[in-house]
Amino acid sequence: MASTAAARVLSPSSLSSPSSPVSSSSGHTASLSPLKAQFLARPLRQSSFGSAFFATSKGSGNKERSHTTPVRALIAPDGGSLVDLVVPEKERPARLGEAASLPSVTLTPIDVEWVHVLSEGWASPLRGFMRQSEYLQSLHFNSLRMADGSLVNMSVPIVLAIDDTVKDSIATSSSITLRAPSGEAIAIMRSIEIYKHNKEERIARTWGTTAPGLPYVEETITNSGNWLVGGDLEVLQPIKYHDGLDQYRLSPAQLRKIFEEKQADAVFAFQLRNPVHNGHALLMTDTRRRLLEMGYKNPILLLHPLGGYTKADDVPLEWRMKQHEKVLEEGVLDPESTVVAIFPSPMHYAGPTEVQWHAKARINAGADFYIVGRDPAGMGHPTQKRDLYDPDHGKLVLSMAPGLERLNILPFRVAAYDKSQGRMAFFDPSRAEDFLFISGTKMRNFAKTGVNPPEGFMCPGGWQVLVDYYQSLSSNSNGSLTKEQPKEPVAV
Amino acid sequence: MASTAAARVLSPSSLSSPSSPVSSSSGHTASLSPLKAQFLARPLRQSSFGSAFFATSKGSGNKERSHTTPVRALIAPDGGSLVDLVVPEKERPARLGEAASLPSVTLTPIDVEWVHVLSEGWASPLRGFMRQSEYLQSLHFNSLRMADGSLVNMSVPIVLAIDDTVKDSIATSSSITLRAPSGEAIAIMRSIEIYKHNKEERIARTWGTTAPGLPYVEETITNSGNWLVGGDLEVLQPIKYHDGLDQYRLSPAQLRKIFEEKQADAVFAFQLRNPVHNGHALLMTDTRRRLLEMGYKNPILLLHPLGGYTKADDVPLEWRMKQHEKVLEEGVLDPESTVVAIFPSPMHYAGPTEVQWHAKARINAGADFYIVGRDPAGMGHPTQKRDLYDPDHGKLVLSMAPGLERLNILPFRVAAYDKSQGRMAFFDPSRAEDFLFISGTKMRNFAKTGVNPPEGFMCPGGWQVLVDYYQSLSSNSNGSLTKEQPKEPVAV
Repeated sequence: MASTAAARVLSPSSLSSPSSPVSSSSGHTASLSPLKAQFLARPLRQSSFGSAFFATSKGSGNKERSHTTPVRALIAPDGGSLVDLVVPEKERPARLGEAASLPSVTLTPIDVEWVHVLSEGWASPLRGFMRQSEYLQSLHFNSLRMADGSLVNMSVPIVLAIDDTVKDSIATSSSITLRAPSGEAIAIMRSIEIYKHNKEERIARTWGTTAPGLPYVEETITNSGNWLVGGDLEVLQPIKYHDGLDQYRLSPAQLRKIFEEKQADAVFAFQLRNPVHNGHALLMTDTRRRLLEMGYKNPILLLHPLGGYTKADDVPLEWRMKQHEKVLEEGVLDPESTVVAIFPSPMHYAGPTEVQWHAKARINAGADFYIVGRDPAGMGHPTQKRDLYDPDHGKLVLSMAPGLERLNILPFRVAAYDKSQGRMAFFDPSRAEDFLFISGTKMRNFAKTGVNPPEGFMCPGGWQVLVDYYQSLSSNSNGSLTKEQPKEPVAV
Repeated sequence: MASTAAARVLSPSSLSSPSSPVSSSSGHTASLSPLKAQFLARPLRQSSFGSAFFATSKGSGNKERSHTTPVRALIAPDGGSLVDLVVPEKERPARLGEAASLPSVTLTPIDVEWVHVLSEGWASPLRGFMRQSEYLQSLHFNSLRMADGSLVNMSVPIVLAIDDTVKDSIATSSSITLRAPSGEAIAIMRSIEIYKHNKEERIARTWGTTAPGLPYVEETITNSGNWLVGGDLEVLQPIKYHDGLDQYRLSPAQLRKIFEEKQADAVFAFQLRNPVHNGHALLMTDTRRRLLEMGYKNPILLLHPLGGYTKADDVPLEWRMKQHEKVLEEGVLDPESTVVAIFPSPMHYAGPTEVQWHAKARINAGADFYIVGRDPAGMGHPTQKRDLYDPDHGKLVLSMAPGLERLNILPFRVAAYDKSQGRMAFFDPSRAEDFLFISGTKMRNFAKTGVNPPEGFMCPGGWQVLVDYYQSLSSNSNGSLTKEQPKEPVAV
């Protein structure tokens, strides 16, 4: 019979929930004891990036640590080396000249976010928008086969759609220029391949539904062209947004450098697109405690808010970043062992399919532990009164996904407000009546209506940011759309 | 960058078409010369089933061959050994007794076809209807992970749906009895697992559309229960249909025995659900000629019509079998090097997803070469005026599918009626005007209206079978449904 555990799913008692598949008897996923996991993780991480080496501090990070502490190498990027598609500075003038002479495609803002993602190697080993062979493998298998026969995970198609007119204008050229909405040339795509964009099939296989109202679909697919164009990218300069947040947009290479400087021997990533409340904080600090118990000396948290496209009723990035700042300022999370950075990918809301992308991209940034919760990348069904995805499927699919075998998956327990202790705590079903669940919607309503959440739900400074955000909305609700304001009314 | 060829795609000139992806420059699939393919195939087939051995004829097959001709072993079944779920004869009375005492589920005729498929190991290493972990892997990855970390292909979920009432009646039992529609106990399922049946997601991810009118969906899913139940099967006796065709329903084990007795050193499978015309025959004989040129001494053709559920306007199995019989009788195919048997699987019409299942199942029956044509397992879109699938995707997806690396894929050239020669020939685009394309619909219309197709399109005896079939329809069109009659009017 087929065994079903690919990635190693760790379930230290405080991380695994009673209802967690990890501890279920049906054998969905391999359940490793913390100790076993510790030893399992090491040889894998080493073999994937050569053996341990002696790091020399580059002047930042833990000053109190010896500069010759043996540190294990970070997990290797998919494909063995990190893809970097940005043209070296000295070659840029020549490339810019060439770009001006090539037929071009003007991108949407979300296309530009994908160029950013590709340019920094988040999607390593992908070197550009997908050609048909990658597209079909991603769509059907959620993975890409390497020349050596091995598989890397790639669950969401990263594709560029064009309409018939654009197709005709580039069809005879093997290289094309990609332009930002402003008209600025941002990349050259080489050896292009144009193939059919079957939107219905792409949507059905990626989201598991074709119901109207999927945010990413309505934003990027429904009105897009009937062709896809793929090829190898040469990005003419690093992608910047000039929105005051670029300093948080660290590339996988920059993150790896920081983790090495901090002499991290474990990096655990937390993907989020919501404000951090004390339940999240509890989970992250508890994860670090567990990793220390497992024998790691310096586990580093990558607090990694998604920074690309999100749906209208999510809290916008700049407000989330203000909120995360407060969480660190007010000591809810330990600044020394936490790295906050922006993950530049757009959000698909594709549940079990997308969570693989979220995890795979973090491997490329050096994370070897990934925290996964209930219904990752999920949302309500757009036309039915239910979750779009089974809340357990994300965790299960992630644990079985091809190409993620090297990743340690940390399923987490639901935290809720414990009325008996007046703070957020891991939910204890034996005294369920003590717990108060505060959903995202409920939290938003509190903030919108100026109601304070129970003491201890979120640090005061962080909460104030949310209140300010929703006040900025109402104060702007004279119709003029501002960057902070969702394109649609906030769902309540 | 990810290489995209998994299975070896062979393109001897007469097999590959100008438009074939095999010879395309975009590097979709590895193009091997016949010679390279010949040597490539050998070590793989050997390593997969131990080294070459000396077969001793068991009295059938090529009498003229020496009984000590060295013969390479057949390709190994997925998982290494062929699954056989039929209870040994001496244990049946005890099991039947137990079955009578267990809560039971009554199957549909198509469920019984799947029990048949599972019982004989066509789906090896699967040992029963899928549990959730297999279901999710099949749905998201088209493959199952083995305990050793390797992947086997499994592209269509093989699942058993039950409704709330049945669920409640079996929920407390770990073993259940599966009953034929007649009420007869046909199997025990052990260590059952019950999980949610999200029909919309299953349909979207399997077919790439949720449009109404997909034959298998309407027949088996739309009105099925909201739960799936999986577990290990013990089948109480070989599944028989008593329709006069059981002698053609050879199990993978029986087929392997025949191929060994015939001392086959290559087995090439041809999946079909239509009558064989001379274009198919040309293709199969040409394939054998090519395999001989490649150095194989005794390539055997497995002519393998699908025998399970098919849509209403396909020609029913018993008429197709009569037609195939004539094709052999009249010497269009060589009986010595051809094995005709029925593939018991139901038809999904799921194109690129299903063709993987069709190929994988044939590996389990000993086939190491698989012939794939335009739009395999495809059909028209149920609600739009177009093919449901891109006609090239089946071939491409098959060539890249995880778990099919050992299979040699033979893409084939379209054959059409060559008016200049008065026979079926491979289409030559340089003189397109000489060729007449006779679609399945056109062929059916000829047969229905008593029009003879051009001389040389199909052997006379085979054609007469089709004429008789359509006459049997009209003579029965007084409303009483007979086995030969489709459930709906034949599409024209």
